Parts: sequence; structure tokens; C-alpha cells
Amino acid sequence: MSGEFDFIAHVRTQQHIAGPVVLAAGDDLAILKLFELDATLVGIDQVLDGVHFDSSIHPPELIGRKAMNRNLSDIAAMAALPTAALVSLALPAGTTLDYAKRLYAGLKDAGNAFDCAIVGGDTGTWASASTGRLAVTVVILGRSAGVTPVRRSGARVDDHVYVTGPLGGSIAGRHLTFVPRIREARALATRYKITSMIDLSDGLSRDLAHLCIESGVGAVIDASLVPIHIDAVAMKGRSPIERALSDGEDYELCFTGEPGIAEAICVGRVIAGDGVWIETDGRREPMMAKAFEHAIG
Amino acid sequence: MSGEFDFIAHVRTQQHIAGPVVLAAGDDLAILKLFELDATLVGIDQVLDGVHFDSSIHPPELIGRKAMNRNLSDIAAMAALPTAALVSLALPAGTTLDYAKRLYAGLKDAGNAFDCAIVGGDTGTWASASTGRLAVTVVILGRSAGVTPVRRSGARVDDHVYVTGPLGGSIAGRHLTFVPRIREARALATRYKITSMIDLSDGLSRDLAHLCIESGVGAVIDASLVPIHIDAVAMKGRSPIERALSDGEDYELCFTGEPGIAEAICVGRVIAGDGVWIETDGRREPMMAKAFEHAIG
Repeated sequence: MSGEFDFIAHVRTQQHIAGPVVLAAGDDLAILKLFELDATLVGIDQVLDGVHFDSSIHPPELIGRKAMNRNLSDIAAMAALPTAALVSLALPAGTTLDYAKRLYAGLKDAGNAFDCAIVGGDTGTWASASTGRLAVTVVILGRSAGVTPVRRSGARVDDHVYVTGPLGGSIAGRHLTFVPRIREARALATRYKITSMIDLSDGLSRDLAHLCIESGVGAVIDASLVPIHIDAVAMKGRSPIERALSDGEDYELCFTGEPGIAEAICVGRVIAGDGVWIETDGRREPMMAKAFEHAIG
Repeated sequence: MSGEFDFIAHVRTQQHIAGPVVLAAGDDLAILKLFELDATLVGIDQVLDGVHFDSSIHPPELIGRKAMNRNLSDIAAMAALPTAALVSLALPAGTTLDYAKRLYAGLKDAGNAFDCAIVGGDTGTWASASTGRLAVTVVILGRSAGVTPVRRSGARVDDHVYVTGPLGGSIAGRHLTFVPRIREARALATRYKITSMIDLSDGLSRDLAHLCIESGVGAVIDASLVPIHIDAVAMKGRSPIERALSDGEDYELCFTGEPGIAEAICVGRVIAGDGVWIETDGRREPMMAKAFEHAIG
């Protein structure tokens, strides 16, 4: 970027000292004073041009929003609250100051929606416009704030399996505009016994498999219970149920817990053994096979 | 990378639960239990192929080492101790599992040298080998551990200005192999009144200017006191003193504090007003002009 120092100066005007932030961007490191009773959660996630977004189509505000919200979705997946974020930008040579500001505005606004300030960062520019593409990396810090973090490893046989919303077809636009399910996760974990949880980034079939592997159990999904998003119905190619099982980037939560949780959609249950299965009209088959029927057929 | 899941499986075998780490990589987020009396420090820093290293020349172990050590150098610059790190890799298409493992080994070994475990991360692969280059992003978490973090903003008139070692010519190799000055910073801040500090990544002329601007003071450097690294003497082009003032990537510390600190090298003093000046044979001129004499001449 031509005006890298201008951008850093701009970013510094956007900082505010609040909550746990003692010192925000501008020194070697940010300083936080964290609440002593909390567990601290931390993660990092990047979005890459041509992989997670397409800078030739998507406006920078939405790219920034997605980068921040993917991290906030990880906070949701553990039923935590966000504390602060840091952002690292790798900009193509020739990026304008205006573009960088719009990208940052998307990041900041998404964080602000959940009281998550950006407290630090790093900006670099690739040496050549032809070989370096935009990468946006976000670090998220979170806090348990009175709710024990929900891991992937606690699912037990006979738990029910739930999702928080309809699935599939997010590529039509929701992968950029989703809202992290932080409030939903906090409400669920406060009211009910939630035994394991993950956010649906890779698709129900793969992400539920993660929960099962970490928990040492299996799961069976009832195809008739899977909520299919209207976006998946409208799209060509694979069937709506296949899209709901495997499209990914829904950023709804998938969790296991006690039966009878009315605030989420029950889609199946935890079983002994391993593997993730789907039942359609009483016939049980491996869910990955169903999800990728067309891809491998 | 062809074996991304293999790499993640490898990384998980490298994790260990120790100190503040409650849950390391493998869930949505890592969980830390931080010591309640500490301030928490956090920063992020990336290295980009073609900017901070050259993957066609430098082995991946040294690239990983540099990425981690730049962050540990930020910890040193605040006289803190590292708590944990997270790593995000953006890999060119076609990166081999072996290459990724070597990169990670460099990161891990550098962290281990300062008891800084890697507790989480993210790995992505660019869609096209021709347009996505290697980026290594490291997040560092630190703790004050009984020493008030030294900011950039505390320099006072009549403080002396110090550096911790000889400067210039790091491009000959030291920019990859330096050792973060964490132990030196802790020893100095424990024994003496250190008023401001920064690590020398951009070169003495620019980094000292950062300290002065943040502190609202000026500084004057005595050219005869600046320690010049043998690497800067051996190199062609600019003069050794110019290299010592402006080459950057020394990763020594520059700090201000009370007179008479024998464990560091006094190079000048803090003055009222603003600007960073250099005195050579009694003649005072702006240090940036001296540093860039040839570049702008």
C-alpha cells in the first residue's frame, strides 16, 4: 500500500480504551487486564483471496466482516464471550489507502457488534502485485465469563444432536453476511447441559465427525429432521439435502446435549461406536457418502 | 498443501499441556488459565515471502525461527515474558508436508527456547501456485510477571539512550538468526529505571523516532558511541555508520533510562523538543538525513 503509515495512523484513531484494554495499538504490544476468575480463550483464523473470498467480486467491507465473524463464530462454538481481537493484513502491492480503510471498517464493525475491540495488528504489503494476494488474519481473545467453555470432546451416548439454524447454499452470500451465534450459545449453555459444540464451517457431515472423533462416539442423523436453507433449495447441482450436509460455511452451531432443547433443531442422536450416519426412510448409510454422492459418483 | 490434515495431525502431536495451557490446538480455540496478578500482553506479526525472507534461498526452519523470534522480540521490548503463541500459515499451492513440518519445527524450536508453547493455529493453502506466496503469521501472548511493561511513551529529558548490541548489516544473515533480548530486558528493567523501550526492527533512526514521538521528547545520538556490527563494516555500499543507523532488523533493544547503566551501550541522550539528531565531531544534523544520505543524495 502506498500509504501504509497513513493507514496505521488511521487505525490508531479507531482505537478506544475500554473494558480489559489497558493499552491498544501503537506500542510493541497491546496490554490487557483480564478478569482473574475467567479462563482465557484464544484462536487465530485467516481468510485468503481466491479461497475464502474473491476480491474481484466481494467488497472489502464484507471481506473484513467475514474475517472477524469467523473468529467470533469460534468464540460462539465454545459458549464464550469475545474480549478483544488483533488483525494482520497482507496487502497486494498497489492497495489503496481507501481500500484498506474499508477493509478495516468491515473488521471493526463486525467486532463492535459483539463489544470486541481491535487492540493491535500488523500491516504488510507484498513486494509484487502479481504474486501476493490479500490475506486477512484475525486473532480472537475470549473469556469464559461464568460459563465453562464447551469443548468438542464431551458428547455422550444418547445425547441429542442439534443445530441452530437451516443449512446449505451459503455460497449464495451467507458465507459473507452470517451473524456469529454468540448470544445463542450463551443462552443454550446457561440453560441446558450442552456436552460438546462446534461451529459449522466445513459442513455438518465433517464438523459432526470432528465432535464424534474428539468425543469417542458416533452419531446418527435423521435426514427428515435436517433444516434446509432456502438458498440450498434454489441452487442447481447437488440436491438440497446434500448441500445441507456438506456445503459448509453455514456458521450455525452444531452441538450435543440433553434431549428436549426447544431453542435449537434436533437432527439426530449420539450412539456408541464411531462414524457419522444418516437415516433416510429407515435406511442408514455413512453421512460422508451421502454428502458427497455426486462428487464421487 | 496436499497433506493438510496430515500436517494438522503432526502439529497436534507437537502440543503439550503445561503452565497456563489448559487446552491446546484441536478444539475451536485454545484455553489458557492466566495468573491473576499479571497484565496480559498480546501482539501479532507476519513475515511475507519476498519481503521479510526469500523462500528460494532461506530454509524453512530459519523462516519459522524468524517469524517466532520477531514476536518474542516484541515481548522483550516491553520487558515481559512470553506465555504462548499461535501460528497461522498461508502456504503456496503444492507445498509439501515435509516443508510445512520444517517450517513448524523452526517456529516451535524458537518458542521453546523461551518456554513459549504454540497453542493453536490455522493452516490455509492458496488456490494457485502462481499467485499465492508463503505468509507466516504469529500471535504472541505475554505476561508482565512482576515487571511493569515498559512502553514507548515514558522517555524524559536528560534520560540516556542505550542499545543492547552492535547494529547494521543484519541482511548478511542476522535478520534470520538473532536471539530475542528477553533475558536482557528483564534484567535491565528489574535493576534499573527504564523509561521507554522498543526493539530495533526498522533501524535506530526510525525506531528511536518512534520512542521520541510517543514520549513527546527529542534525542541526540553521539555518532562516536554507536556500536557498529562487523557485518556492517564488511558490506559494500553505504558507510558502516549509515548502516548502523538505518539498516534495521537488528532486533537489539533501544531504551531510555537513568544514566550509568553498564550492561548496555549508551549512545546519546534525551532532549527537550522533538526530532532525533546525530552529532558527528560536534556537528549536529537530523539523524534521518545521515541515515539516508546516499539514498536521497
